[in-house]
Amino acid sequence: MTKKITIFDSTLRDGAQGEGISFSIEDKLAIVSALDELGIDYIEAGNPFSNPKDIEFFQHFSKVPLKNSKLVAFGSTRRKDCKAEDDKNLSALLSANTPAVAIFGKCWYLHVTKILGTDGNTNFNMIYDTVSYLKSKGKIVFFDAEHFFDGYKDNREYAMAALKAANDAGADSLVLCDTNGGAFPDEISSIVADVVKTFGDKVGIHAHNDKGMAVANSCMAVMSGANHVQGTYLGYGERCGNANLSTIIPNLHTARGFNCIPSENIKKITPIARKIAEISNISIKSNEPYVGSSAFAHKAGMHADGVLKLPKSFEHIDPEVIGNERRILMSEIAGRGAVLEKIHKIDPAIEKSSPETANILYELKELESKGYQFEGAESSFELLIRRNLGKYKKFFELITYRVMGGRPSDDDSTSATAIVKVSVGDQTQLMAAEGNGPINALDKALRHALEVFYPMLKKMHLSDYKVRVMDGKNATAATVRVLITSTDGKNVWTTVGVSGDVVEASRLALTESIEYKLIKDFMI
Amino acid sequence: MTKKITIFDSTLRDGAQGEGISFSIEDKLAIVSALDELGIDYIEAGNPFSNPKDIEFFQHFSKVPLKNSKLVAFGSTRRKDCKAEDDKNLSALLSANTPAVAIFGKCWYLHVTKILGTDGNTNFNMIYDTVSYLKSKGKIVFFDAEHFFDGYKDNREYAMAALKAANDAGADSLVLCDTNGGAFPDEISSIVADVVKTFGDKVGIHAHNDKGMAVANSCMAVMSGANHVQGTYLGYGERCGNANLSTIIPNLHTARGFNCIPSENIKKITPIARKIAEISNISIKSNEPYVGSSAFAHKAGMHADGVLKLPKSFEHIDPEVIGNERRILMSEIAGRGAVLEKIHKIDPAIEKSSPETANILYELKELESKGYQFEGAESSFELLIRRNLGKYKKFFELITYRVMGGRPSDDDSTSATAIVKVSVGDQTQLMAAEGNGPINALDKALRHALEVFYPMLKKMHLSDYKVRVMDGKNATAATVRVLITSTDGKNVWTTVGVSGDVVEASRLALTESIEYKLIKDFMI
Repeated sequence: MTKKITIFDSTLRDGAQGEGISFSIEDKLAIVSALDELGIDYIEAGNPFSNPKDIEFFQHFSKVPLKNSKLVAFGSTRRKDCKAEDDKNLSALLSANTPAVAIFGKCWYLHVTKILGTDGNTNFNMIYDTVSYLKSKGKIVFFDAEHFFDGYKDNREYAMAALKAANDAGADSLVLCDTNGGAFPDEISSIVADVVKTFGDKVGIHAHNDKGMAVANSCMAVMSGANHVQGTYLGYGERCGNANLSTIIPNLHTARGFNCIPSENIKKITPIARKIAEISNISIKSNEPYVGSSAFAHKAGMHADGVLKLPKSFEHIDPEVIGNERRILMSEIAGRGAVLEKIHKIDPAIEKSSPETANILYELKELESKGYQFEGAESSFELLIRRNLGKYKKFFELITYRVMGGRPSDDDSTSATAIVKVSVGDQTQLMAAEGNGPINALDKALRHALEVFYPMLKKMHLSDYKVRVMDGKNATAATVRVLITSTDGKNVWTTVGVSGDVVEASRLALTESIEYKLIKDFMI
Repeated sequence: MTKKITIFDSTLRDGAQGEGISFSIEDKLAIVSALDELGIDYIEAGNPFSNPKDIEFFQHFSKVPLKNSKLVAFGSTRRKDCKAEDDKNLSALLSANTPAVAIFGKCWYLHVTKILGTDGNTNFNMIYDTVSYLKSKGKIVFFDAEHFFDGYKDNREYAMAALKAANDAGADSLVLCDTNGGAFPDEISSIVADVVKTFGDKVGIHAHNDKGMAVANSCMAVMSGANHVQGTYLGYGERCGNANLSTIIPNLHTARGFNCIPSENIKKITPIARKIAEISNISIKSNEPYVGSSAFAHKAGMHADGVLKLPKSFEHIDPEVIGNERRILMSEIAGRGAVLEKIHKIDPAIEKSSPETANILYELKELESKGYQFEGAESSFELLIRRNLGKYKKFFELITYRVMGGRPSDDDSTSATAIVKVSVGDQTQLMAAEGNGPINALDKALRHALEVFYPMLKKMHLSDYKVRVMDGKNATAATVRVLITSTDGKNVWTTVGVSGDVVEASRLALTESIEYKLIKDFMI
């Protein structure tokens, strides 16, 4: 089967309605470019009528050529009391100057009377006039049949007649929306099959996740004949979110052989997910299917052993296919096999029964009980192994540090000062630095002090900084875990520090990030 | 339909294999008690053979009576080369002294030969002997048919024969596992129907979420005749997690009328989810179906207006049914209606067109562009409204503060010192305090200084503290958002602060938490 399924992404429109999401124009441009690179067919990028800023975006973007995607503007059917050509919403929609438009119309009779406050025929005319008018302007028109499944279950005849109005007017696709996210896969299957039987090969699905089944509902709609899937790339959206395209695309492609995006781009599924999450400033939940950092992470001793023997024993697909990777997690139940794999990268001669292995496992467990986790900080774990194997050198010592801060300050960007004293061999160096807060000041003072001895540290910088409060109940005295990701342009490494004092936790992670760089440069 | 579906929770066994999860014995006791309160039928609480700590847990717990639940210990079929009564795994299983046991056995012929390294008949004997032996000891026996769906698709005859061995030996339930999480709902439906036809009313489902369809697959199995569902309460589990019972139970109960837990407990679905998340120290993702804080949150202006008119226009169920609540979110696209609803709580006379409404919307937008979010900090938003309406009083002023810290320190729990100067009316007060890190020291100094004037602050304490790094790319100079939740024993309120300096961001949230308490005590 190589049937083409049209993919329609609404991250920038329906996704923007998710809690905690807010896109700048630069964010939107960057997301459009990522989705275009992946080969998404249609990108719905805004609602020009309800959000006038979106017009600015569309006008800017209509000059930027896309390789694979077409832009879509979103709006509603005309108002009940004016002609399509006089409707302000439709004028705004056309001013976006996109090749395609999506318009939503009512299909649930209850909504027509109670929310719209009109009669059934007027609503048919609103749908027919709107689609005809937009077709006469040369647009590709997607008709989003709002509340279609609820409407169909309540009054099949009315819901089907609303689709007929859109179809008669020339809509290119009839997209069935489970607006409230309340449908079950078996309902989706039978209703989509009925609609496909009536209207043919032009049916789409737009599912919401309120019952946790948006991905399954979208896949089942395709199995029942739908050839157009709407969703948001990472499932962003109001309430429980929209159908997650980063799951649906690989589901349909790898398990059922549908053609959703160009085959050569399937390996970009994970990198594009991480790029969009970064632009959106929302971390991907670690157990997100396909693209999460834990999606192919094995912790249980037996599973980890099994997957090393025969990957398909505990993996539904090869993670490399979608650009993710297998991880064997370091943890108290990881078992010696997984820890040994890490140890062997440093010293292949160490065995499962060696005393070093037992020592490392013991230290791992001790640190975990203090709140450390090495699952995301593999460079700190490598330093732990190296210390136990004697393959470690102390390149410097931080003898003491002091931080001072407060408000008001003379200058908002230098509200704190740090002083550090380091020693390298028999030399000591005192250094002070100002920064925005005590952690930034300490970071600068420590690097400046060490750069005197190790000039290559000038090339290194921090690329990510994360703080996790471990036990919020202790409030401002809670234990915090700090993760620092560093880079020198070639390599990227992550280290961890834990303390009840966020400055000290940051200092621990910072010190290890510098140690790791020096070990890599001088010892390997 | 009021068919009873047996619910089997594995949060403490399969869930414990999720990345970032680690349960102490106290955590396990607290989770068992929460699940028992909800009325979960079976609680699988550990694997006594692979984790000897679990035996201690079971032995302790067998003395604590449960109201609704039965405990289950988990293990595997006997080894291929010994009798059931000599098998150490089975002895460990029995030593747990639970009324029920779950044992997994192989059903995928490929696994029997490649992983187990034996022949098909030996595996049948291993299954038969193990189940018979455990039945002879008076246990309720669940047979977890590992990799059943992959095995069935590969070799139906072998997979069905493995079930027959368990069934002939007297297994109480044949639980079909989608171990790799790779199945589609249509496969689940047809395979479960086939098994139910062969073995009758004793079929269960155990789904994993690697294709994002574990909830749908579990629901479809029940629609095809399964009467036992295994999952973890919040979907914790290895890789992409297990089927999420906090979604499945309300799906089956509210939409399809199955009886999963006692009806009167359905309203505890959300409170129990929050309790288990807190014990597990993992925040529930905000858009989690049913139990997430955004699950019934409405942001888009039109949706928010619609849901206020007719809730079922954008809600699949009434949030109160499962103990959650509707929220109208404050944000730049929220529209005046939602902001007005908050304003009316302070002053019902303000109108949509009042200049105060426009000012508040403007200030909201300005603060959001600096990184503020009021969606989770409604008390800070109330203070913003009050300032604009003149219903605010400045009870104190923080004139200046200074923090100092560093290592080594004399005492790890007082690694920092803070000095604050506050004024109340024409009096000033200088106060110093030590703490674990500069934020804790500042927190103490500020309260001690203000308690001189306002003794009721002694009753107030912080109950949660969260730090979110907004833009990790700026590393230690990144903007951070701090959320502080406070309580005085009666009320709970949350405030927010944003700055590039984590101390200053904490100070802002801290100051507002105290202001809010004083306003509530003196002005309302």
